[in-house]
Amino acid sequence: MSSLFKNLRIHQVFGANTDVGKTILTTALVRASAWKNIPVHYLKPVSTGPIEDADDRHVNCFAHAQGKDVRAKCLFRFDEPVSPHLAARLSNRQADVPTDEAFVTAVADSIRQTAHQTSRPSHMYIETAGGIHSPTLSGTTQVDAYRPLFLPTVLVGDAHLGGISTTISSYESLLLRGYIIDLVLLFKDAYYRNFEYLMPYFSERGIRVLPLDPPHKRLANPDEERTEMGKYYSCLVPDSLQGGMFDALEHLDQCHAKRVAELDSMPQRTADTIWWPFVQHGLVKAPSDINVIDSATKDFFSIYNGHKAKATQEAPTASLLEPQFDGSASWWTQAIGHAHPSLTLAAARAAGRYGHVMFPEATHAPALRLAERLVHEGPGKGWASRAFFSDDGSTGMEVALKMALRAYASRNTAAKPERKPRKDLGILGLKGSYHGDTIGAMDACEEGVYTCEWHDAKGYWLDPPTVSNKKGRVVVSLPQSMASTADGMSEVDVGSLQQAYDVQSRLESPLADVYRNFVASTLKKLKERGTPEIAALVLEPLVMGAGGMIFVDPLFQRVLIDVVRASEPHPPAKGGWSGLPVIFDEVFVGFYRLGLRTTGPLLGVNPDISVHAKILTGGLLPLAVTLASDSIFQAFNSDSKLDALLHGHSYTAYPVGCEVANETLSIVEKLAESDQWDQARAQWGIDKSEKRAETAVWSLWTPDFIDKLTRLDAVDEVMTLGTVLAFKIRDNAGGYQSHSAQKVLQSLRLPTKEQTSSSAPGGAPFGMHYRTLGDVAYFMLSLNTSATVVQTVQSRILAALQSN
Amino acid sequence: MSSLFKNLRIHQVFGANTDVGKTILTTALVRASAWKNIPVHYLKPVSTGPIEDADDRHVNCFAHAQGKDVRAKCLFRFDEPVSPHLAARLSNRQADVPTDEAFVTAVADSIRQTAHQTSRPSHMYIETAGGIHSPTLSGTTQVDAYRPLFLPTVLVGDAHLGGISTTISSYESLLLRGYIIDLVLLFKDAYYRNFEYLMPYFSERGIRVLPLDPPHKRLANPDEERTEMGKYYSCLVPDSLQGGMFDALEHLDQCHAKRVAELDSMPQRTADTIWWPFVQHGLVKAPSDINVIDSATKDFFSIYNGHKAKATQEAPTASLLEPQFDGSASWWTQAIGHAHPSLTLAAARAAGRYGHVMFPEATHAPALRLAERLVHEGPGKGWASRAFFSDDGSTGMEVALKMALRAYASRNTAAKPERKPRKDLGILGLKGSYHGDTIGAMDACEEGVYTCEWHDAKGYWLDPPTVSNKKGRVVVSLPQSMASTADGMSEVDVGSLQQAYDVQSRLESPLADVYRNFVASTLKKLKERGTPEIAALVLEPLVMGAGGMIFVDPLFQRVLIDVVRASEPHPPAKGGWSGLPVIFDEVFVGFYRLGLRTTGPLLGVNPDISVHAKILTGGLLPLAVTLASDSIFQAFNSDSKLDALLHGHSYTAYPVGCEVANETLSIVEKLAESDQWDQARAQWGIDKSEKRAETAVWSLWTPDFIDKLTRLDAVDEVMTLGTVLAFKIRDNAGGYQSHSAQKVLQSLRLPTKEQTSSSAPGGAPFGMHYRTLGDVAYFMLSLNTSATVVQTVQSRILAALQSN
Repeated sequence: MSSLFKNLRIHQVFGANTDVGKTILTTALVRASAWKNIPVHYLKPVSTGPIEDADDRHVNCFAHAQGKDVRAKCLFRFDEPVSPHLAARLSNRQADVPTDEAFVTAVADSIRQTAHQTSRPSHMYIETAGGIHSPTLSGTTQVDAYRPLFLPTVLVGDAHLGGISTTISSYESLLLRGYIIDLVLLFKDAYYRNFEYLMPYFSERGIRVLPLDPPHKRLANPDEERTEMGKYYSCLVPDSLQGGMFDALEHLDQCHAKRVAELDSMPQRTADTIWWPFVQHGLVKAPSDINVIDSATKDFFSIYNGHKAKATQEAPTASLLEPQFDGSASWWTQAIGHAHPSLTLAAARAAGRYGHVMFPEATHAPALRLAERLVHEGPGKGWASRAFFSDDGSTGMEVALKMALRAYASRNTAAKPERKPRKDLGILGLKGSYHGDTIGAMDACEEGVYTCEWHDAKGYWLDPPTVSNKKGRVVVSLPQSMASTADGMSEVDVGSLQQAYDVQSRLESPLADVYRNFVASTLKKLKERGTPEIAALVLEPLVMGAGGMIFVDPLFQRVLIDVVRASEPHPPAKGGWSGLPVIFDEVFVGFYRLGLRTTGPLLGVNPDISVHAKILTGGLLPLAVTLASDSIFQAFNSDSKLDALLHGHSYTAYPVGCEVANETLSIVEKLAESDQWDQARAQWGIDKSEKRAETAVWSLWTPDFIDKLTRLDAVDEVMTLGTVLAFKIRDNAGGYQSHSAQKVLQSLRLPTKEQTSSSAPGGAPFGMHYRTLGDVAYFMLSLNTSATVVQTVQSRILAALQSN
Repeated sequence: MSSLFKNLRIHQVFGANTDVGKTILTTALVRASAWKNIPVHYLKPVSTGPIEDADDRHVNCFAHAQGKDVRAKCLFRFDEPVSPHLAARLSNRQADVPTDEAFVTAVADSIRQTAHQTSRPSHMYIETAGGIHSPTLSGTTQVDAYRPLFLPTVLVGDAHLGGISTTISSYESLLLRGYIIDLVLLFKDAYYRNFEYLMPYFSERGIRVLPLDPPHKRLANPDEERTEMGKYYSCLVPDSLQGGMFDALEHLDQCHAKRVAELDSMPQRTADTIWWPFVQHGLVKAPSDINVIDSATKDFFSIYNGHKAKATQEAPTASLLEPQFDGSASWWTQAIGHAHPSLTLAAARAAGRYGHVMFPEATHAPALRLAERLVHEGPGKGWASRAFFSDDGSTGMEVALKMALRAYASRNTAAKPERKPRKDLGILGLKGSYHGDTIGAMDACEEGVYTCEWHDAKGYWLDPPTVSNKKGRVVVSLPQSMASTADGMSEVDVGSLQQAYDVQSRLESPLADVYRNFVASTLKKLKERGTPEIAALVLEPLVMGAGGMIFVDPLFQRVLIDVVRASEPHPPAKGGWSGLPVIFDEVFVGFYRLGLRTTGPLLGVNPDISVHAKILTGGLLPLAVTLASDSIFQAFNSDSKLDALLHGHSYTAYPVGCEVANETLSIVEKLAESDQWDQARAQWGIDKSEKRAETAVWSLWTPDFIDKLTRLDAVDEVMTLGTVLAFKIRDNAGGYQSHSAQKVLQSLRLPTKEQTSSSAPGGAPFGMHYRTLGDVAYFMLSLNTSATVVQTVQSRILAALQSN
């Protein structure tokens, strides 16, 4: 967990290399704090080498003095004077080697203990080992291992020949992890003069550099060395309490105060300047309603709670930052957790190589590789021929709609001498669908509460049957509109979750015939109605997300497509689309959000056009891709510019977005083959040998949790697939209001105090951020949320629902 | 310029630190090539220290042998054994210190000379000095200074204690500049064993690591040392011509061959998989029509020409990559050149700190700072109260339209008990306007050739008067539709460019009255027509870009706004909008594209809503912001969720985009105050003391060039503002076809061979990439295109036009 306390100013000290004076300068910082009579804590999380040379001993020796409150501590100690990972290995004490999580927890615990003892302004310095990327005990390099703590940093620069390079590179590696760098300390080497170069360099980047006189050459005689060192520290930390290291102290105090003040001012400033998406500002009553996100890591935000703590009169020793579980995967975008270094580096390398480059009639490796991957190996496998890039799911859908309407029109307009587009076309879709907020995407949805002045819904929307788990029974619920076709049936038991999604087997069921008749009669009715002429079938396969996490019966979607495609008496030659062009909006459901690479194999049909976004870029930045079959493409291919798909955005196929997508897909495909997923699938009875990425129905939520959830009084229906959990709150029982999901679950927002071994970074109690839709509550995991975090989240949800 | 030759495989060697064995391992590479009887070239661009220790001497000593073709060369030599920038300073030979441009040109020349002599497969190694970020002679760190050459890299890792950290940090700094890293070489240190850690580390990242035995400790006796060193090299480069450094050789050869093959395959693969924006694929006849962009830097793409060279039977010694001037600033997005390290680092630090985080009811520093900056100091200064984020200009305009229509409707709908949105509203705009390709943005434009099935233009579009320079006269041309109001006038002389844009003075002119009458009668006519009811005024201020680089008479836009605003008899209280909400689409014209921070001050009026994108993010990635006044915001502010602005995208206000925008705005504002801009402004008679960022009318193109251009036979009209140059090709003269801009200028696409001192990186001949719109040709500079590049581009344009 990120740590920030009003009264305890903490800095971690990183070195640009080993042997750059990190311990000496940290000792001087500690001494300066002590000399100012400020209680000061020194922590060396990992020490390697003989104890008599240990850094905490050095601190105790030179920063301590009568009446000064200095506490030095080391958490993990290994004897060999080599990199921690190697020292651990050479020690034959494997049992003492903490995992990264345990390591961070140990440091965080130490910080928390320190903070709890702190009644007046205090300082804490945490000294890392070696260079910033030196591996810690587990082998993870320090800059990544310490990242969950997100501590402000003092970088000790390198004064040797070559030290300009190591200092700047270290700075850049710190930046790549988002660290706040408050100060660079380094020795004034009179010959190489690195400080002369680095002072303006960092000053331009808003970072203070404090050059300091170097110590003498180490003396052979220990007593003499000790005396000389004492003299040296007296120069760095003069008795006058001014200059030398006291400048650093003052600067670090200012940085700390500024950071707290900035965080504290953010809620009000946000309320004054920001216009949020989808938010009624009139309902955000107090600054404490605003989620101030200071940083994020893996599944957790680190949020400022100072403005809330004030309201609730928290103790001044409480942390001003707390972890918050990102329970909606940040609008369903997160795939592999926040701030994943691989994605940061992917973004950086494309930015460094190209910036953005003009795309029409051009090509570059990141876009080409992404297109090939999506078309040949990804969701386009087996049917797509081309990829069209745009910026978000909504623009991707606008492109898809333009493609489908043109494809339909060009086949269904006898002559087109004037090239006038047909304006009388509409789409066929499902009630509850959502495709984005630009007008074209909105026009492909029914008008409801989410509408606006230019929204002009063009088409017809069928009320779909849905799948859910009701008190242990997996059932398909049929809509009222289907009652006559279904002979009054309203609910059909379909056995297990796996059976519900075994579309192939269910094609022979009586229900399939009900669906066939229902769809056929609807198509007939629409044909008779005449206008708008239905020109495309648009579906969110399996789950309609924004419309309320509606799990549509997959058999119904399959039958719908089959009937539509068979509706054309003479299917076109060469495998072109038939009936209507079919669009799959996979923005929400794609790329393993539901545990499946893509939805076509499970449904047993492919679309003619598909749209992809959200997880595509791993939860880092916007990008959308619309895939199309060759028969769709050919509707635009001619010798006339006017027939072209006239759509584009300034940053179409920007290399940074494409490269991040490529990196995401590599990581995600590896995850799909990982032990973590094998274990999760095994819980749902999925054998390793099954063609798991294609059609296996399973969930990262555990079966026993789902079972418990379905049996709760407060819960009516439950559904889960892959990372998604959705449940309907019972709204007719005593005390529950309709649309009450938000209310029932609101205790989840607060961090629980009693958690003893939660899995938030650093073992801190955490709150949960989630979204609801009316009476539906839903939670989303990343594809790599750890099993322990899943367990904790599950118990929290059960506890919240039981207490209501 | 990037260098890539079929027969000459080049690698640059960077070190993770100084003293890591860079020279020894480079010498071994040279020797291995030589021992294979491959002609090999060694280049040490900068050498510091005494000549007897120089690296090129070392290479000559140990890589040379009877019958081997080894050529070692050094370009710049300084005596002091310190970092090059310091050695240069200490030398008192300031005149010998090259600028970065001269430095890159010298290295590129050396490469070109080598390539021209190369008749059979050869190798070249370029050894840098110190660590990757060690400053070169000018003070720029090497990793940036060498970047325009974009050479594949061998990184020599650090085998010392701490060397894991320096190696990984160096690797990350190289990635941040987009470098291709083919190989990591490092010594096997038996105690610290860094190679054991680094081999799997880099293997996971697709990079080969070759660990090699370290040399003996340096001997004091020079003869003994020389003998021992000879033995050592015999081990690294064995006579068997196998193993040791020969593995590296083979790997580097494969990397080179793979890179050339990949580039060579890209045009066809692109033609097979990509669906471009706005492109008629049927008109892209051959793979050689496809622009393969291998990298980009500043104003230049580096494009592959191997597939073109084949077609034209180029010599095998020609470079496979050539610079191409990005003459449309990549769809007008580029502000400070491609791959600017500051923007890469900004993207990296936000990715590292947050990834993307959920924005509704939340806040984070990058978004908040950007919003405050835009609202209080940027284009929103003086009128805006809030910022709404979206993904691109088109979505930003959809948001703006939703805002304006609702604001209008909520004031102009007597009662709204059912909260049903009004569907009968339209907008008032100008003919030739363009606001993006999503349906809502399209619906705010007239239907023309750029249309599609669901495009339903809602509103009325006025034919605007335009400003241009016709053969030295700056005139306003009035549209036919204004003829009766203007008493038959069709053209009005307005003096100079500055006078044309002095809107305040021109408000008193007779033309202003013509405009007032014209607008008033139009509004009356529209009121009578009734439907759609005009609900908003939507303008691209000063220039309509995509519609044909139409420079609208600013006086007309000012009068239009004034008359619309005065049309409401009782202006609302508290400074709210009056008449109609006014939207400025500043996506193209904003952020100094026209030399102005924003357009309001020049026009003398502010909008109620404005939209910003393109330069906002410096030409790196997509982001849009819609700014709104408080009176617009209040139309959505209530206690009902249904009144909220129900618009949002998954990555709304993503931190990476916001942080890049913040960095861009800082850089751009500094540029606006820079000497470069002062000098450019001075050419146009703008005094430093003028409030230059607000209303000064000037151009980065030079006045003498504009003057020459206007007088060419081939040119009808010319306009320039800021970075934009547009001119109309004369289409009624002998031999010119209508819409002939593309044809007249096509020679610009080819690099000119005769250029002697062009300013493309490395002094290479360059081609130009540009876009045309019918008979209008336009060129766009970055805000920091150097004066020498501007000069070269100008002469090229004049030459192309004169030769036609």
